[in-house]
Amino acid sequence: MKIGKLGEFGWIARVEQAVRHGEGVTTGIGDDAAVLDAGADLELVATCDCQVEGVHFEPGWIEPRQLGHRLAAINLSDVAAMGARPRWALASLVAPPDTEADRLEQVFAGLSEELGSAGAALVGGNTARNAGALTIDLFLLGQVEQGRALLRSNVRPRDAICATGDLGASRAGLIALQQPDLACDAEARDAVVARHLEPRARLAEGRALLGAGVAACIDVSDGLVADAGHLAERSGVTIRIDAGLVPFSDETAEVARAAGRDPLDLALAGGEDYELLFAVDGERVDEVVEAVRKASGTPVHRIGVAEAGDPGVIVERDGERVDVEGRGFDHFSEKNTD
Amino acid sequence: MKIGKLGEFGWIARVEQAVRHGEGVTTGIGDDAAVLDAGADLELVATCDCQVEGVHFEPGWIEPRQLGHRLAAINLSDVAAMGARPRWALASLVAPPDTEADRLEQVFAGLSEELGSAGAALVGGNTARNAGALTIDLFLLGQVEQGRALLRSNVRPRDAICATGDLGASRAGLIALQQPDLACDAEARDAVVARHLEPRARLAEGRALLGAGVAACIDVSDGLVADAGHLAERSGVTIRIDAGLVPFSDETAEVARAAGRDPLDLALAGGEDYELLFAVDGERVDEVVEAVRKASGTPVHRIGVAEAGDPGVIVERDGERVDVEGRGFDHFSEKNTD
Repeated sequence: MKIGKLGEFGWIARVEQAVRHGEGVTTGIGDDAAVLDAGADLELVATCDCQVEGVHFEPGWIEPRQLGHRLAAINLSDVAAMGARPRWALASLVAPPDTEADRLEQVFAGLSEELGSAGAALVGGNTARNAGALTIDLFLLGQVEQGRALLRSNVRPRDAICATGDLGASRAGLIALQQPDLACDAEARDAVVARHLEPRARLAEGRALLGAGVAACIDVSDGLVADAGHLAERSGVTIRIDAGLVPFSDETAEVARAAGRDPLDLALAGGEDYELLFAVDGERVDEVVEAVRKASGTPVHRIGVAEAGDPGVIVERDGERVDVEGRGFDHFSEKNTD
Repeated sequence: MKIGKLGEFGWIARVEQAVRHGEGVTTGIGDDAAVLDAGADLELVATCDCQVEGVHFEPGWIEPRQLGHRLAAINLSDVAAMGARPRWALASLVAPPDTEADRLEQVFAGLSEELGSAGAALVGGNTARNAGALTIDLFLLGQVEQGRALLRSNVRPRDAICATGDLGASRAGLIALQQPDLACDAEARDAVVARHLEPRARLAEGRALLGAGVAACIDVSDGLVADAGHLAERSGVTIRIDAGLVPFSDETAEVARAAGRDPLDLALAGGEDYELLFAVDGERVDEVVEAVRKASGTPVHRIGVAEAGDPGVIVERDGERVDVEGRGFDHFSEKNTD
């Protein structure tokens, strides 16, 4: 079977089955990051994510420095989703020999800047050539208090499901980049494009969640429904999302309108928002909202609830069930083109 | 300037200058692996290395399972060169959607097997698609006793320079793969092809070196002269290699002969041997040779000496200086094709 047919998550499931977990592995394959016990007071979290030219970015759309920031941010977001502090990174560069060194230097300047502002340092890496598209992999290590990492598997029935910030802006930004002649408000356009090109990891928010006793979290990279699905699968619960409560910005709505799209679709399936999606005991929501607001100024919205039942996600809008088949982003799937 | 013109090491030097080192970084960019203090009794070592189809391997030459082994081995070798124990790995897969999942599964089986036999576990990773060549990045973490990692910067004037095993076999294997009709002994051919496709990391040897008090080491991935050059640069010494003492196997000599090549050239510049090149006080060589033999059965050869002087490598053969210009493997260089 072709990997495009199997899909990213089908593939990960296969690898997971084939792999034996070793000593010191608190949490292995299947979360935002691995959790490793290296014998210190703090556990390690380890993650990697890459940017491939023509897949994750188009060189004409993004400045090299922005690309470096973005590469850092998408990895920092995985560390944020574990409630951890980022510490050290390695960068693996695979580039054609005719790549301009100045351009790469800008990428690395942005990378180093974004890592530095998050308290992490670039400590090594690798370089190799290829004949194809510029590919940069980042490997990021963080640290978190023993046994406290925010896991996808910690959602309990009756937990409230909440999200930081707002959703769909990154996809709205992508649409605006793909349709330069889109007739929409210029400020709205710029705002969502910035959300797509310059995502920010919710690090302070992740630490606040951990501090407030939250135990289950994921970052929204594949799309709200897809990522809620990861929580549901790993926790063995049904997650019910009230579409009427899913937050999206006025700017997202404006760009969606101009493109003839429902902004809710972008919010449910857009992906690359890098907001945190988490679960907490329903009676403690106000307390957690306040802790996140105090730490970061970021709003939190309650958008659903977990229930005992088959693992999966149900989205309802005005009491009607919304068809969510095929929403979200699967890296090997042929259905990606939106 | 194009990165092909700047070269891999020119590029790394630029990145190194641009990057600030953070807290807990014992050794950052510029060694086989980074050394990180995570607050435990043992320090972390962290490295990454990749395999790109058409650059590091040709799919027709290598079995998928061998490719997985090879990816593990080249990373394990960096951990070996630090004197560390491998612990945890993350794999980043970038593949075209039409890649056969069964083939990738074989790659990951080989990867997991080789990691497992070295005491390490695959704990996470990432998957993304591209339109080009299969690219797999591995990130590997190991652990080493505080302050004991074997560094490139620890060579002292008057140290003896030694190498484990023998050199040039991997390049001889590559030549044999490139010239299937080469008229040479079939057993010799098979032996060097296996050395190219199935390198083994010198982990027990690295641990023995650390145990015997060795402080300076690198693995031979770029080529003996190039890697001796890295030791010389980082330690600020001249390294003088006696070409008559550089070990190569009878099989390497046989394949070189058939291809009209000097086996010494392959041993000096071939690369991808994954032997350990290290420095030790000249009076302690016998003791270290014995420690490595006892731990692994692997022979060690004294091949040169470090001297006070400008950082660089001098190779002599029967008292004559050998021209070593341009030897070794630079991943961005246009001079790679041998």
